[in-house]
Amino acid sequence: MHLAALRPVAEQLFADIRDLSHDGVGVTRDSYGHGESATAAHLCAFARRHGLVAEADRAANVVFRLPQAPAGGPAIWAGSHIDSVPQGGNYDGLAGVVAGLLCLLARREAAPGGGPAFEVLGLRGEESAWFGKAYMGSGALLGRLQAADLELRHRDTGARLADCMQGAGADLAAIAAGQPLFDRRRVRAYLELHIEQGPVMVQRQLPVAVVSGIRGNVRHGTIVCEGDAQHSGAVPRELRHDAMFAVADLIMRLDAQWRALLAEGADLVVTTGVVSTDAAEHSVSRIPGHVRFSFEARSQCSQTLEAFYALMRAQCQAVETERGVRFVFDARQTSAPATLDAGLSRLLARSCEALSMPPVLLPSGAGHDAAQFANAGIPAAMLFVRNQHGSHNPHEAMDLDDFMLGTQALDHAVAQLQMQ
Amino acid sequence: MHLAALRPVAEQLFADIRDLSHDGVGVTRDSYGHGESATAAHLCAFARRHGLVAEADRAANVVFRLPQAPAGGPAIWAGSHIDSVPQGGNYDGLAGVVAGLLCLLARREAAPGGGPAFEVLGLRGEESAWFGKAYMGSGALLGRLQAADLELRHRDTGARLADCMQGAGADLAAIAAGQPLFDRRRVRAYLELHIEQGPVMVQRQLPVAVVSGIRGNVRHGTIVCEGDAQHSGAVPRELRHDAMFAVADLIMRLDAQWRALLAEGADLVVTTGVVSTDAAEHSVSRIPGHVRFSFEARSQCSQTLEAFYALMRAQCQAVETERGVRFVFDARQTSAPATLDAGLSRLLARSCEALSMPPVLLPSGAGHDAAQFANAGIPAAMLFVRNQHGSHNPHEAMDLDDFMLGTQALDHAVAQLQMQ
Repeated sequence: MHLAALRPVAEQLFADIRDLSHDGVGVTRDSYGHGESATAAHLCAFARRHGLVAEADRAANVVFRLPQAPAGGPAIWAGSHIDSVPQGGNYDGLAGVVAGLLCLLARREAAPGGGPAFEVLGLRGEESAWFGKAYMGSGALLGRLQAADLELRHRDTGARLADCMQGAGADLAAIAAGQPLFDRRRVRAYLELHIEQGPVMVQRQLPVAVVSGIRGNVRHGTIVCEGDAQHSGAVPRELRHDAMFAVADLIMRLDAQWRALLAEGADLVVTTGVVSTDAAEHSVSRIPGHVRFSFEARSQCSQTLEAFYALMRAQCQAVETERGVRFVFDARQTSAPATLDAGLSRLLARSCEALSMPPVLLPSGAGHDAAQFANAGIPAAMLFVRNQHGSHNPHEAMDLDDFMLGTQALDHAVAQLQMQ
Repeated sequence: MHLAALRPVAEQLFADIRDLSHDGVGVTRDSYGHGESATAAHLCAFARRHGLVAEADRAANVVFRLPQAPAGGPAIWAGSHIDSVPQGGNYDGLAGVVAGLLCLLARREAAPGGGPAFEVLGLRGEESAWFGKAYMGSGALLGRLQAADLELRHRDTGARLADCMQGAGADLAAIAAGQPLFDRRRVRAYLELHIEQGPVMVQRQLPVAVVSGIRGNVRHGTIVCEGDAQHSGAVPRELRHDAMFAVADLIMRLDAQWRALLAEGADLVVTTGVVSTDAAEHSVSRIPGHVRFSFEARSQCSQTLEAFYALMRAQCQAVETERGVRFVFDARQTSAPATLDAGLSRLLARSCEALSMPPVLLPSGAGHDAAQFANAGIPAAMLFVRNQHGSHNPHEAMDLDDFMLGTQALDHAVAQLQMQ
């Protein structure tokens, strides 16, 4: 069956999974929990009903393949994740799994060729929203979950990650041993189709784009600016140590440095997502004595991250001196940028061109399972599909026509890889 | 008895009242509540034990006078408030009442002269912390409480102000009628001694100062900056509508305008006491979509307040345009600056000089009951006593030697007024 004819199948599958995971506001497919498992079960039943093989791997991820393809031989992987954030959107993750399934369905009657087999992964546990850690399913598969990770607790139930993974069918002993749960040499490529989680493709009118790289980040969850809490009417400007004015000053200094780096061509985004005066003591008529704030910088380039981090610390020192405040930092957290495979990315770009789409490269600001595979040495590449209203909210809106174009580009690239 | 000899009496009185209103952290003398009433009762018992007359006025404030002075004739008033903020300091308000009582004690045996009588007010309900409104006791006395004020609710118990005032013995019918509860023509002057609530006198090594004027203010309790909540990694700078960067930008613009006005000699302080991203949706990896913040400017000069307010609104518009956000304002609140009486202030300055202290004038950033009397046409003036660690906190630290110097200056001025 021709791929384009499978549009109604995709539409029905998205609708069915939205229904089964709807929480009244958005969708909730909790990692290693009910919503994710119900989605996995639905996908497996769908696949089997349509003549595909669906199996769990040792990390409880779902693997789909053609019955005629030899298991265990060289393979091209495509996939994404099946979990969601609480009250999330229907396409974040699921789009990539459904795209892979459509590609498999289009090949149901194909004779086995001599090239690598095509397998589709439905990964679990990608979202950090549930256990405070992302990429748990791909991490387990790659032998990269730490003992401490397995002790993490579910945000709502307090259940241990280890217990939740085991409950979903994962081989905990193997995961705890930290060994890869598959033969990495057999996987020639990992391709992931995912919705764009920002507004760039809407803005630039691009239905599909190739991901140039995945931004890493450097973060502080909490920096505290300590000033002097004083009566707002009674202290002249020169005797103030206003923690809020100090943080505002810092943010504007970061903004200026950010603009300067962008002008030099750097890839960088900067966010202070959480900022707050101290609710226990703040009031309209009190100079803030404490302000807590978060800091995050993301870039495809490690050097840019390090340079910007150093600038941030230097600006904190300058503000401390000028305003008589003190910045207290929690532990710095770092996530390395991921370099996607240049050859695979060129292949995806050519596939876009074959479908009369411009081969535009965009950075991914969000992290993805593809970064885990890339950083483990498996050649990886990604396609973005246009999506409105951002992600991690119920208002995600992917046009099914865009999705089908992305799926066709994925299929085209897989076919090329199988012929090599 | 000579005033200076009453130092141990003052020390004991402060200690006793601290003990009876101690809450474990600071003192709590809630307006028209238990702590304030217990303090009033203690002051009345003290006064009567020492041969003074102590009575409640129709607004439930306490009035102290000499038994030999005629009631109802021309009078010089001195006073301050007896309530405190929650977990407040012992001297905010109480110092002025105790100072007045000491002056009365020093005159116990004086023969009635021909001049105006000297009366001391212990005012209730000065702090806005309890019902969201300040100067309730002096306001009631002046016939300036509104019907809406009487419906205000206690922050903890939810009880109506009207019921709490009535419970404390106030004549609600008279207060609700909005008529002054005393003959204003008989009051020749209102003098208030109060601790300084800022660090200026500590910084300038001044034990006592004369207040030049009381800053008014213009406020917004809540301004909301509305931007776009988006994924922190996925949105480039030029497509962001970051509500936090916008608020930081606004604050730094206000800071620059403030500095410019100070350079021109204006009296102005500016504070954003409450600033917060939205706890229901904020996270380290999310561009803030909503930031709530408060705005307050204070000045002795109405024109400066209006000019700065207009600058603030203009800067909001500029930030809206540059950053694609929107500022939504709650109702603007204004409190007019109070002009203190020039003649009385000169008299207080001369009294300081008579005690070998420099006659330094300082603005009061905080509001005081004196401003209510001044704005109602009663000549008013104030003395500040040095105080460490600011105010509205348990760490207020007034040196009793400074307090006695201030009390002597007050006494000196009252004596001059009675001789006129």
